[in-house]
Amino acid sequence: MIDVKGLVGRLVERGQTVAAAESLTGGLLTATLVTVPGVSRVLRGGLVVYATDLKHSLAGVDAGLLAERGPVDPDVALALARGARERCGADWGLSTTGVAGPGPQDGVPAGTVYVALAGPQGQAEVRELHIDGERQRVRDAAVATALSLLDTAVIDS
Amino acid sequence: MIDVKGLVGRLVERGQTVAAAESLTGGLLTATLVTVPGVSRVLRGGLVVYATDLKHSLAGVDAGLLAERGPVDPDVALALARGARERCGADWGLSTTGVAGPGPQDGVPAGTVYVALAGPQGQAEVRELHIDGERQRVRDAAVATALSLLDTAVIDS
Repeated sequence: MIDVKGLVGRLVERGQTVAAAESLTGGLLTATLVTVPGVSRVLRGGLVVYATDLKHSLAGVDAGLLAERGPVDPDVALALARGARERCGADWGLSTTGVAGPGPQDGVPAGTVYVALAGPQGQAEVRELHIDGERQRVRDAAVATALSLLDTAVIDS
Repeated sequence: MIDVKGLVGRLVERGQTVAAAESLTGGLLTATLVTVPGVSRVLRGGLVVYATDLKHSLAGVDAGLLAERGPVDPDVALALARGARERCGADWGLSTTGVAGPGPQDGVPAGTVYVALAGPQGQAEVRELHIDGERQRVRDAAVATALSLLDTAVIDS
């Protein structure tokens, strides 16, 4: 279980803000952050880019990259995190893209997820996950990984 | 309890899509929709416009209106719903804006919420809510009202 309140507190201490671009988690990542009172000092907002074309039009992911690799790809995840930072004017950008299931999507097995982070000093990280189980379990794991990635990066920065 | 699966099924039958612009619910509205398998046929995406300036830059709400009325206002709610429709290319746009609490915000009491809908035939509706209780209860009520507003409008259309 990620300590969301602790993470928000560390961001408040540093005067830093966060935003997200979410595909398979569909808003669950930012919704998890807003459970913490006082989060308005650190959460800018987010982009829910469920449809593939919105990853380009809302988050600025290169259309050629999306056409070549499809939406479930580590470089797309990184571009989404950078897009969240830029479009929402935040210090940190997080992203999630993957296949929640139950079936595969465009040949990518259910449970395949990429989570990425982009930071104010050029930090850029991507995690690849393979999660067994229900849609909700896949999403919860994606959210926990994104928040954990941010917490580690904030502590290290 | 709103029948989210039934609502998604009705949208699938009509070949219609939805998007949201969320302030106080912070992504919970779209995250509720993505719990339904097959929702990718109807959910385009969303804008989490937690910071007031993002209501203008991401969702296109008039900056003068925001400056004059503040973010918790029925006309701002309607402009957010229209912005969600347009920016995400959806048939239906939903929005939420309000004060989750625990304290008041800019003189607006906790529990004050506006939920709006914009539709493909010019439908435009706003609901004003006053909800007692915890932050999560206020958010859950906002999400339930938005989904109920959409379900009624879809059935009537």
